[in-house]
Amino acid sequence: MEVTMSELTAVVHDAAEVVVAEGTQTPLQRVEDAAVAVEDGRVVAVGPTDEVVREYPPENARYTVDASGRSVVPGFVDSHTHACFAGDRSDEFEAKLRGKTYQEIMAEGGGILRTVRATREASDDELLADLLSHLDTMLSHGTTTVEVKSGYGLDTETELRMLDAVRRADEQHPVDVVATFMGAHAVPEGRDADDYVEEVVSEQLPAVETQGVAEFCDVFCEEGVFSVDQSRRVLEAGIEHGLTPKVHAEEFVHLGGAKLAVEVGAASADHLLQATETDVQTLVAADVTPVFLPGTAFTLDTEYADARAFLDAGAHVAVATDFNPNCYSQSMPFAVALACTGMKLTPAEALVAATEGGARALNREGGLGTLREGAPADLVVLDAPSYRHIPYNVGVNPVAAVLKGGDVVHV
Amino acid sequence: MEVTMSELTAVVHDAAEVVVAEGTQTPLQRVEDAAVAVEDGRVVAVGPTDEVVREYPPENARYTVDASGRSVVPGFVDSHTHACFAGDRSDEFEAKLRGKTYQEIMAEGGGILRTVRATREASDDELLADLLSHLDTMLSHGTTTVEVKSGYGLDTETELRMLDAVRRADEQHPVDVVATFMGAHAVPEGRDADDYVEEVVSEQLPAVETQGVAEFCDVFCEEGVFSVDQSRRVLEAGIEHGLTPKVHAEEFVHLGGAKLAVEVGAASADHLLQATETDVQTLVAADVTPVFLPGTAFTLDTEYADARAFLDAGAHVAVATDFNPNCYSQSMPFAVALACTGMKLTPAEALVAATEGGARALNREGGLGTLREGAPADLVVLDAPSYRHIPYNVGVNPVAAVLKGGDVVHV
Ligand SMILES: [Zn+2]
Ligand SMILES: [Zn+2]
Repeated sequence: MEVTMSELTAVVHDAAEVVVAEGTQTPLQRVEDAAVAVEDGRVVAVGPTDEVVREYPPENARYTVDASGRSVVPGFVDSHTHACFAGDRSDEFEAKLRGKTYQEIMAEGGGILRTVRATREASDDELLADLLSHLDTMLSHGTTTVEVKSGYGLDTETELRMLDAVRRADEQHPVDVVATFMGAHAVPEGRDADDYVEEVVSEQLPAVETQGVAEFCDVFCEEGVFSVDQSRRVLEAGIEHGLTPKVHAEEFVHLGGAKLAVEVGAASADHLLQATETDVQTLVAADVTPVFLPGTAFTLDTEYADARAFLDAGAHVAVATDFNPNCYSQSMPFAVALACTGMKLTPAEALVAATEGGARALNREGGLGTLREGAPADLVVLDAPSYRHIPYNVGVNPVAAVLKGGDVVHV
Repeated sequence: MEVTMSELTAVVHDAAEVVVAEGTQTPLQRVEDAAVAVEDGRVVAVGPTDEVVREYPPENARYTVDASGRSVVPGFVDSHTHACFAGDRSDEFEAKLRGKTYQEIMAEGGGILRTVRATREASDDELLADLLSHLDTMLSHGTTTVEVKSGYGLDTETELRMLDAVRRADEQHPVDVVATFMGAHAVPEGRDADDYVEEVVSEQLPAVETQGVAEFCDVFCEEGVFSVDQSRRVLEAGIEHGLTPKVHAEEFVHLGGAKLAVEVGAASADHLLQATETDVQTLVAADVTPVFLPGTAFTLDTEYADARAFLDAGAHVAVATDFNPNCYSQSMPFAVALACTGMKLTPAEALVAATEGGARALNREGGLGTLREGAPADLVVLDAPSYRHIPYNVGVNPVAAVLKGGDVVHV
């Protein structure tokens, strides 16, 4: 694809298709033989190429992208990742294939607490370098906004160091990085859960507020991790410290995390494999965004969440990667493919969930994750004639170029 | 990665790991802190970097690849694809997600016969251009040898045109392309199966022999397609015309294709989802290579074949993509990931199946698909410290560079 550079704005022209992807509209809002014009980081026109280029002549644009034979979709908003960590757990992936259970791996010192040890031992610069490398991979797969959680520190110092790495990555990298504090990700080795929750509430959260990086507070509400009451305590304290709640809810057993998400006014409830019909109705009524993480089901070889139940109930759902050492895929196109093949979303539903749905899960609805006029000009040019190829051509990165705020940041 | 060019040979040095990947040896044969030296297209040394570079100084090499922090594996041998076709069936992928059955899609004029119509209508140059484009994608994912079947012509003229496109692609592209004649891929519209088999045997096969491109003859032995007797007739006639048999066997129902593969001395029996314990024993005893296609199970959302039963019986198994309009992934790294997550092969077993196993399925054992001394210098440099990352980092292309016969053909 030919990319040229001049001064004023960006014009992506002659695309076979531009997907506006607004809301859960069926059919998907899209324009054929289309162009997108950008000024000051925002979409100012989407429409037939001849109309757009008449008003916004490409020769006046700083970037001109000839997207002939290609399609354009909004940048992916990956609303659930644990992308800041140190260490490598590919050996555990192999051990699980050989039949070892996660419990056995934990008993041998593996699992999440191994990542906690590695993360505590890593320097600030190592944490940042690894995170930046993952952001590069995400960007090359079309992600333009990503949420990253802390939670591999489990002590005040390391949690703050993780959030600082997230802040520095956000400053240095074209991808927008949204910070979530998740001190309540696991109970540290040798600690009592109540005792640790007390530390999160009385020590970590005040320090996180002072540091001022985090926007959300998340908790792993799960049997054997944090109970509903412990989770509530963390999230309510988070609210007092200015953080919007999110909940890892109903993943392995049905514990009440979805109901808790509604009670505390969470932005999202994530995983939801064990959600009941009541949970579905309650979450939808409260406009808590359900976030589905099909990569986790794929990696753990479990059933997928019933995203269809939420769509049928009128939910605006999100799909995200859950990138972490246990679900090691930074690729939103792969998450979209799994949302289709595993959860039976249509390509249009999966695409909207991976863009506008992600924006909702991050309380950024109103433009982000769409290409309507006024939206942030975060665009992905696909090396394919239609967005349908994202899940169809599975395992292959469809991204030809990425624009962030109108700047070509990957090609 | 720094790549420099001089005159004599290639040296890939300072790799974190070089996987020799010979046979089904456990543990996998590999060398850490290793280098590979190449002369005249063949591996002449694999070993610790200091030893290899003493004998083969990189400054004398045409290509020098600094693989620090990276790993090196043999090029993938994708032994089962239908990569020569025209048209796009991404809309059928979506229709299936909406619950439409393949039978309904067929009844509406979709499915394989739609690809047959598109392929017959495509020009020679269009067929070649599409195939070359797929080979580019395969190469960028580490495939250095690929088998491509005809079988979307179902008439003499188009079958020969497909095989000619395969020949031209093999000549023009760095990837080695192995041609399989598969006139018996489906029964053409409005034709009787016996009648069509007669055409394949008496008209197509003689023409294919005269054309001289194809090396193998394959048949879709399946209920409602070609019976065991019809399949035997095609494969035996193929042998008379100099073609080595392959069989699409026991995919949807147990019909006897595996037994047939043994009787005709096939190089491989492919799919094998319905293979019985007797089939396993018979195929292993006859040294017919079982080829597993986990992408097909993933795409069709069916169970995976029981590859473990074959490994337990001592088989040298192969894993391939089955790339075709219905299973649209050119990526061998993704096939390896599915072989692990879906079929529970270890990363080492899956890698050997995707390299040396593929060579066996194409009757090219004895070096291809390994990096032992004397083997063709088809090397993949991974952007990861270990081959374990191929399945671990699922949905992300791990390939940093590809050497074919010692030449850097992708970087
Ligand atoms: Zn999570
Ligand atoms: Zn096939």
